[in-house]
Amino acid sequence: MKSTPGSTVGVEKYNQACVKPTLCFSQGAKKPFKKVTDVSSGDPQRAGMSPISFVRQVLAVCLYPQLLKEKSLPLDVRQRAQKLLGSCGGGSVGSYSKTSCGIPHVHKSVAEFITRRDGGVSSHPENIIFSSGSQKTLSLVLHLMASGEGETQTGVLTPVPCPHTLPMLLDETGVALMPYQLMEGRGWALDLDELHQALKTARGRCEPRAIYISNPGNPTGHVQDRKTMEEVIRFAATEGLVLLAEEVYQDSVFGQGREFLSYKKVLFEMGKKYSETVELISFNSISSASMGECGLRGGYMEVINMDPAVNNYLRSMQGTSSPPVLPQLALEVMVNPPSPGDPSYETYTQEIRRTLTTLSQNAQRACEFLNDLPGMNCQPAMAGVFLYPSLHLPPQMIEEAKMLGVEADVLYCQRFLEEEGVCLGSGCENGQEDQNYHIRLCVLAPPATLEEVLARLRSFHLLQLGRFP
Amino acid sequence: MKSTPGSTVGVEKYNQACVKPTLCFSQGAKKPFKKVTDVSSGDPQRAGMSPISFVRQVLAVCLYPQLLKEKSLPLDVRQRAQKLLGSCGGGSVGSYSKTSCGIPHVHKSVAEFITRRDGGVSSHPENIIFSSGSQKTLSLVLHLMASGEGETQTGVLTPVPCPHTLPMLLDETGVALMPYQLMEGRGWALDLDELHQALKTARGRCEPRAIYISNPGNPTGHVQDRKTMEEVIRFAATEGLVLLAEEVYQDSVFGQGREFLSYKKVLFEMGKKYSETVELISFNSISSASMGECGLRGGYMEVINMDPAVNNYLRSMQGTSSPPVLPQLALEVMVNPPSPGDPSYETYTQEIRRTLTTLSQNAQRACEFLNDLPGMNCQPAMAGVFLYPSLHLPPQMIEEAKMLGVEADVLYCQRFLEEEGVCLGSGCENGQEDQNYHIRLCVLAPPATLEEVLARLRSFHLLQLGRFP
Repeated sequence: MKSTPGSTVGVEKYNQACVKPTLCFSQGAKKPFKKVTDVSSGDPQRAGMSPISFVRQVLAVCLYPQLLKEKSLPLDVRQRAQKLLGSCGGGSVGSYSKTSCGIPHVHKSVAEFITRRDGGVSSHPENIIFSSGSQKTLSLVLHLMASGEGETQTGVLTPVPCPHTLPMLLDETGVALMPYQLMEGRGWALDLDELHQALKTARGRCEPRAIYISNPGNPTGHVQDRKTMEEVIRFAATEGLVLLAEEVYQDSVFGQGREFLSYKKVLFEMGKKYSETVELISFNSISSASMGECGLRGGYMEVINMDPAVNNYLRSMQGTSSPPVLPQLALEVMVNPPSPGDPSYETYTQEIRRTLTTLSQNAQRACEFLNDLPGMNCQPAMAGVFLYPSLHLPPQMIEEAKMLGVEADVLYCQRFLEEEGVCLGSGCENGQEDQNYHIRLCVLAPPATLEEVLARLRSFHLLQLGRFP
Repeated sequence: MKSTPGSTVGVEKYNQACVKPTLCFSQGAKKPFKKVTDVSSGDPQRAGMSPISFVRQVLAVCLYPQLLKEKSLPLDVRQRAQKLLGSCGGGSVGSYSKTSCGIPHVHKSVAEFITRRDGGVSSHPENIIFSSGSQKTLSLVLHLMASGEGETQTGVLTPVPCPHTLPMLLDETGVALMPYQLMEGRGWALDLDELHQALKTARGRCEPRAIYISNPGNPTGHVQDRKTMEEVIRFAATEGLVLLAEEVYQDSVFGQGREFLSYKKVLFEMGKKYSETVELISFNSISSASMGECGLRGGYMEVINMDPAVNNYLRSMQGTSSPPVLPQLALEVMVNPPSPGDPSYETYTQEIRRTLTTLSQNAQRACEFLNDLPGMNCQPAMAGVFLYPSLHLPPQMIEEAKMLGVEADVLYCQRFLEEEGVCLGSGCENGQEDQNYHIRLCVLAPPATLEEVLARLRSFHLLQLGRFP
């Protein structure tokens, strides 16, 4: 077997440039901390956030139906579990999904949720495709779009910064990342001129076939307004690009006066010229902020205006291995939470509210804290779970990193991990290049954990700056 | 977006030839049965088999840790759940796996299980790669091997019949299926001369790079003996082929005097000439017979003698989307069941025994029953969950199928579904071609369900034969 396929060459390059700090521990050395805190990815439960009780109770009953008789569990938990079990083959989560595309009842629930969310713009179960998280669904789409080499290679217009898993995913699937810069000074807004410029540049180098949007922005925390979204939709329509809208943090907008609008809704409110032509795929996931069920790995995409053959193909890609049942059930609970009057309604609502309050307060607190540090500059986040401050490093430190063959923000994160036991993400993982350094920090954590991280960051940061007076 | 990528052309052809009967219902017509019974795939829980209590109890507690206080659950269930939660990031199944390749504790448990199973031939955690079922892991491997077109296209020597999901998987990944026939008259044994002949034929058409083995055989129920396995290993060594060993039914051998030997064990007992050179990947899954947890989607592969870069690449393919946590925990329970003296030991052992007894008795009963039908001939199964009888159909029925543009075994299964509400698998899904017709039938079902299926099959079958006197 060949040792590495052609498409991994780029991955290797990427791995070399952005060595994950976790790989770089000096073996066996004594550390001045007891445990490692990882705030590099959006993994709230690892950071100590609690799961939503209703979700876990329903899933536990589905797994072990003897609990249906357990009176200490709320009635609506047991009723929901009973209903969900009824939607499973043989009444068991241990059977393959009833169809190879998933459980029809869950398709229906998701479509109803989207229809409600978008104020009546209708969603159809046959356009919903399940997968193990939004990365997996995106990977399916990219595999389908990938073709060509050099100037004919499929390219995707990609925001910089983008979600940190995206560059590697594009590379793996043989799709070229064609960057468009988000405007840091304007709260990471998307700029239409920049988009046109980026497309022009891309056209000389590959065949751009899609534009990727992360809204609410990962890792920027930006929330797009309707005007921007309409511009993007017109741009995609004019240029014949598929619109890939990652909307995983739709449930976690906390910025004053901001609200989440889905690309689907905006598209359908722009009239038939657009709503019947623009190819849109939007992604959502149970790893989102308020559910935070990253370990279960579940998500869906909604596919709009695609050739039916594409839709069928995406469904059939699941076909050889039907999607896992439990994440689908978790998804059903996410899109169909307890209603007012249900026994679990109060607890559920409190838990969701507590999560969003923590998130909002943490984001504000951390942003102010970071902006008080010399050489750090942080745009306030309006949504999502990340802060993404820029890092102005002394030239000597940049030089040192160059000599070590790593990016300076990677070196910074690596040292922080080695010295303080906190794992941050480096901006180069988010597609940031040159001397435009950033760090990425998930702020959905218990406030005490966040304080600890911030305190360690301050002392480390000041020490670094002090090393190069 | 292009409507279908190049590689799906074959899939379309395949889909047309082997139309899944479930797609062919006449809409809205009244049926002489109340519900559809699906025995086409190995999905015991859908057919009504119960899950193993210990597995479900442990997973339910992991999902809803308040159950740790539930005294009605056995102590070893709660202790195991506590231990497994300790191996999860943040002590929660809702966090991403601790490493992007999975939970280290589970890697270790699986390696220890393999070492025990193979009488001390050691297995190493770093060679274990998790995935959502054996199809997904195989898909990763095939993607890595796929290259070329026409005479340079990667080919895999594939048994006919093979697992019914395999032809489509090969096609999807752009790998050519190069058939070698199993010897039906000899209980579906593998024949070395046939293997050589198949390789010779394949070499003119593509670049064969691997041989796929299903042992215990899916759908044949054949169990390979050591001599055959040694021949296959020597063949792979001489011809420079990677050995892909699907060993999912290793826990369900019931034929008198038969036992499962892993390819790993046989390889390592053949001396260093082979054990240090032959590239072997073996697959296992929690969907196997005694666990039957198909809906959870979990499995692993063990990778032997591969270039470390391949191993790293296969692990990194998971990297952009860490594997789901719950299936890993189910896998841990599968490879590490209760020990004698543990509170759950008796129940666990009884449940496993009950499953295997049902399986063995059903297989024998169904085989005798099928052999009593005119125009049907069934080899006895020694393992696994399927029977795979051949079907001698009247020439008129074959002619009729030809006119309808489907294979005759597909037409047979389709009619059986429409008229009797039972979904069988057709041999053409297992790679069988020409007029060599077969049906596939999962016999791991409650005995009463099996009896019902058999009775319906008899009356349908006799009616079909009667239509063409």
